[in-house]
Amino acid sequence: MPTLRYDVLGIGNAIVDVLARADDAFLAKQGMNKGGMALIDGPRAEAIYEAMGPAVEISGGSAANTIVGVASLGARGAFVGKVKDDEFGRTFAHDIRAAGVEFATPPASTGPATARCYIMVTPDGERTMNTFLGAAQDLHPNDIDADAIAAAHITYLEGYLWDPPHAKEAFLKAAKIAHGAGRRVALTLSDAFCVDRYRAEFLDLIRNGTVDIVFANERELHSLYETADFDTAVNAIRTDARLAAVTRSEKGCLVVTREQTDAVRAEPIEKIVDATGAGDLFAAGFLVGIARGLDQRNCARLGAIAAAEVIQHMGARPETSLKELANAAGFSL
Amino acid sequence: MPTLRYDVLGIGNAIVDVLARADDAFLAKQGMNKGGMALIDGPRAEAIYEAMGPAVEISGGSAANTIVGVASLGARGAFVGKVKDDEFGRTFAHDIRAAGVEFATPPASTGPATARCYIMVTPDGERTMNTFLGAAQDLHPNDIDADAIAAAHITYLEGYLWDPPHAKEAFLKAAKIAHGAGRRVALTLSDAFCVDRYRAEFLDLIRNGTVDIVFANERELHSLYETADFDTAVNAIRTDARLAAVTRSEKGCLVVTREQTDAVRAEPIEKIVDATGAGDLFAAGFLVGIARGLDQRNCARLGAIAAAEVIQHMGARPETSLKELANAAGFSL
Repeated sequence: MPTLRYDVLGIGNAIVDVLARADDAFLAKQGMNKGGMALIDGPRAEAIYEAMGPAVEISGGSAANTIVGVASLGARGAFVGKVKDDEFGRTFAHDIRAAGVEFATPPASTGPATARCYIMVTPDGERTMNTFLGAAQDLHPNDIDADAIAAAHITYLEGYLWDPPHAKEAFLKAAKIAHGAGRRVALTLSDAFCVDRYRAEFLDLIRNGTVDIVFANERELHSLYETADFDTAVNAIRTDARLAAVTRSEKGCLVVTREQTDAVRAEPIEKIVDATGAGDLFAAGFLVGIARGLDQRNCARLGAIAAAEVIQHMGARPETSLKELANAAGFSL
Repeated sequence: MPTLRYDVLGIGNAIVDVLARADDAFLAKQGMNKGGMALIDGPRAEAIYEAMGPAVEISGGSAANTIVGVASLGARGAFVGKVKDDEFGRTFAHDIRAAGVEFATPPASTGPATARCYIMVTPDGERTMNTFLGAAQDLHPNDIDADAIAAAHITYLEGYLWDPPHAKEAFLKAAKIAHGAGRRVALTLSDAFCVDRYRAEFLDLIRNGTVDIVFANERELHSLYETADFDTAVNAIRTDARLAAVTRSEKGCLVVTREQTDAVRAEPIEKIVDATGAGDLFAAGFLVGIARGLDQRNCARLGAIAAAEVIQHMGARPETSLKELANAAGFSL
């Protein structure tokens, strides 16, 4: 087996978030599905930006946020994703490297601009996302470095990768390399509408063993199995997946295997400021736990600690050392 | 007298802030003067960005922040400043317009990139700034629209405008138009090092009546009169300026005229998160008070309320409605 260089390597859309506060009336007027992620084209991106309030730019991207969380927990992370060689692309690359993550994917020199996600944060802390994929469309199988994948304990993939045309090939290539090297593959279902677009393919990935660990929130799980009944959905994923973590916001999460189901509570917090990144950071904690050989309850606890930090401020990346928070809670990372 | 369209029109460097947390050791290693603003060239900007941690991009610029504060207080503001037609330039223009400020200065299509300020925020909440002026260098007298200046109750200028080569001509042109239209002109001294660079010129502006209202913090005032004694400096500005507001952080401020000196306390706050914009927002409140005919104590109180909001979060622009905060404190804006 090749030398282990990373605890988690993530592959995802490389995106800069453009965050603004908005009220429910704004979402309604703009025809946005509260809490969801919509793919938008250039003209729609312009129109949304024109209409939205003063914004803050913070690097984002679901799997990228997760890997930054991995690094903040003191573990070794790498990220693969495509930006353009433009100002936002340089911003993305700077921020992820400055967070201690290895990021070696070369930027595109032609084609559309670096991806951005226009995020409306409502007073209840919920985020509603509109993604212009831009350069992230151009992630290709040849951006996958076999040595890097083989050197990662876990390769983590976001379901959103099913949207760009060639990224799913990159995804499948990476999963094959990982398994060939005796490593594990994890997938987040990303978003209920994303599941709606690719339900059959996601179920195949889970059932045929391309994916070893699945992350889903309640809405995504309901969408995957087209059921409104939570227990039905949980029983279905128990049969299909080797290991699944189902996040339920303030209700905590369930860790589900064929043998065992553990419910782990959410970390108590004072106030949700911005839910952006909650699922991403839960995955960070959980995966670091797996990479360090913790039992599944403690993996989920680490996830809950990381998620609690990120929802208490604007933006989807941690502002404080997650390693220190985790150690204060009794872990020794 | 032309119709009044704006309470305050600001002229300043149009800048996007790149904010990151840093510790004192980082400042020392980088040779940065804590709490100050240093002008940097392109290579130094690259080197600082490379060395600094993950950042957040938020539109800034001293006078621009002030005018956004004016709009947040429910008053009418306009801003004049130069960006380039690039991603950061579009970000700046979007954010200031989305805040309700009129911004009509055409962007530069050639020349250096939009200005950015690399800001290190230390754990004590102090900010240390490194400004790459870029396109802001190209503000010209012909960017000054005489009708707009004449339509503003107060034209507000930042001392930082003395740094770009032609901006001071724009500044002087605007001041002349304002006075010709029977309006008032205000100036912030901006920064102690900036005062050091242009002491004689700033004193001239104040003494010869080009400027009616002066904003200074303690360090800037000490620098202006080259004295370590606060009372000596206050007595000097009393003689030189018609009206001066001297801000003293948590000690509140002094409002100084030839006839009268009023000390006004700072608003109590829980914790300083990021001092960026404290002076800018004090000026916003104070100037709105002047434009609305409040007495000088209440002008200072409005300034203190606006400053208190902005230092309790990252970034130099208000996140909540200053009008609501002011009205809750008994004003009727």
